Amino acid sequence: MTTDTRPKQAVVHGADFTVGGMAKGSGMIHPNLATMLAVITTDYPLAAGEAIELLRPAVDESFNAITVDGECSTNDAVCLLANGASGVRRSLDSDLAFSAALRAVCADLARQIVADGEGATVVAQIAITGAASDDEARALARRIATSPLVKTALFGRDANWGRVLAAAGSAPYNGGFAQLDPDLVTLRFDGTTVIDSGTPLNVEPDPHGDALCIELDLALGTGSATYLTSDFSYDYVRINADYRT
Amino acid sequence: MTTDTRPKQAVVHGADFTVGGMAKGSGMIHPNLATMLAVITTDYPLAAGEAIELLRPAVDESFNAITVDGECSTNDAVCLLANGASGVRRSLDSDLAFSAALRAVCADLARQIVADGEGATVVAQIAITGAASDDEARALARRIATSPLVKTALFGRDANWGRVLAAAGSAPYNGGFAQLDPDLVTLRFDGTTVIDSGTPLNVEPDPHGDALCIELDLALGTGSATYLTSDFSYDYVRINADYRT
Repeated sequence: MTTDTRPKQAVVHGADFTVGGMAKGSGMIHPNLATMLAVITTDYPLAAGEAIELLRPAVDESFNAITVDGECSTNDAVCLLANGASGVRRSLDSDLAFSAALRAVCADLARQIVADGEGATVVAQIAITGAASDDEARALARRIATSPLVKTALFGRDANWGRVLAAAGSAPYNGGFAQLDPDLVTLRFDGTTVIDSGTPLNVEPDPHGDALCIELDLALGTGSATYLTSDFSYDYVRINADYRT
Repeated sequence: MTTDTRPKQAVVHGADFTVGGMAKGSGMIHPNLATMLAVITTDYPLAAGEAIELLRPAVDESFNAITVDGECSTNDAVCLLANGASGVRRSLDSDLAFSAALRAVCADLARQIVADGEGATVVAQIAITGAASDDEARALARRIATSPLVKTALFGRDANWGRVLAAAGSAPYNGGFAQLDPDLVTLRFDGTTVIDSGTPLNVEPDPHGDALCIELDLALGTGSATYLTSDFSYDYVRINADYRT
């Protein structure tokens, strides 16, 4: 992964329709704001007003669940254009298939944006399960995904479970902190369990490559959320310190 | 400033008493958590229970208003020991003088901790005035002080007012965001006004050296707060990426 912007495109071919998308982000024009723009097109027939109904949940679990540096952009936008040219006769089945294709395209583009983040050398998926609620799971995932200590550990390819748990334990939620009981948590790096129901196991995962998965199960409830994040590298500092207003 | 830990000490000599303190922090023993410990001693006479009453506000505006990387420590502690050996006869005046000396020692130690932060090359004071409330001012100061884009700009010595305002505009507060009207804000870098009541002035401050002051006046109310922060440098990444669990 370099700091050059690469084309970000995704396509899903359904049985009788197609969903395609393209995105820019993470350093293309205004490198200080990770400006994100995505356009998704389809030949699936949608009535006026339906596009936003389908797009919103797909965006929540993709473009709204990624971070490069925890900073908000001034002008993010995602739009969905549907011209109906496929001539599909819609049914519940075709609607579900379209919804799934739309979510897959959004998730694919969102991942490409993170991978192309400023100075990024790795994309890490933070997957929270067993939280007290989905909202708390999202707060926990966001806190871990934006932690400078977690992100520098990712750059160093260190399976630093202490930093992950310290970040999780300080996830702001509802004026306080998201619920977490250290005696109950199970934590995995790339499938290797490092903490089992609160007990640290004497294993040393060796994360490498450009993709990593951190799974945290809180064993408190049924709330879950996923976030994608990149690492903090020397290049991240270089790009953002050298930039001049 | 290097990544070596330097001794952090402060003393204030009152007319007839002394307040001294020492602190560790920002990489001394457990470099991944900026563990902070401070001990303050005085010969001023205090009754049992009075120390915490005086210490709490002094800590709120010093040790609780600093950040190196936005991460919480697992074991911060500040304690105040008073043995009364000065033999001072207490009065309202002497109490006020002692309180001021205590605050000065806390502020001095807190600044030394930030200056000795991992990889820090600059200490920046973020001063918010004119916020809707003190709590909102604190939320704004904290958001600016922890923003990776502000901190990399500090490392690059760039008076990047866009990043400061973008961070301020996304300061979480009370489930929403702290109030800010971009048409009213005045922003100064080291005393040089770059935005005057919402109007960007065509000036280019040239921040340099190892101390910097960013003043943001919101012109909304009387809330104020101050935060000290360090920059994100190559050394910050190196120290935290090389560290091994």
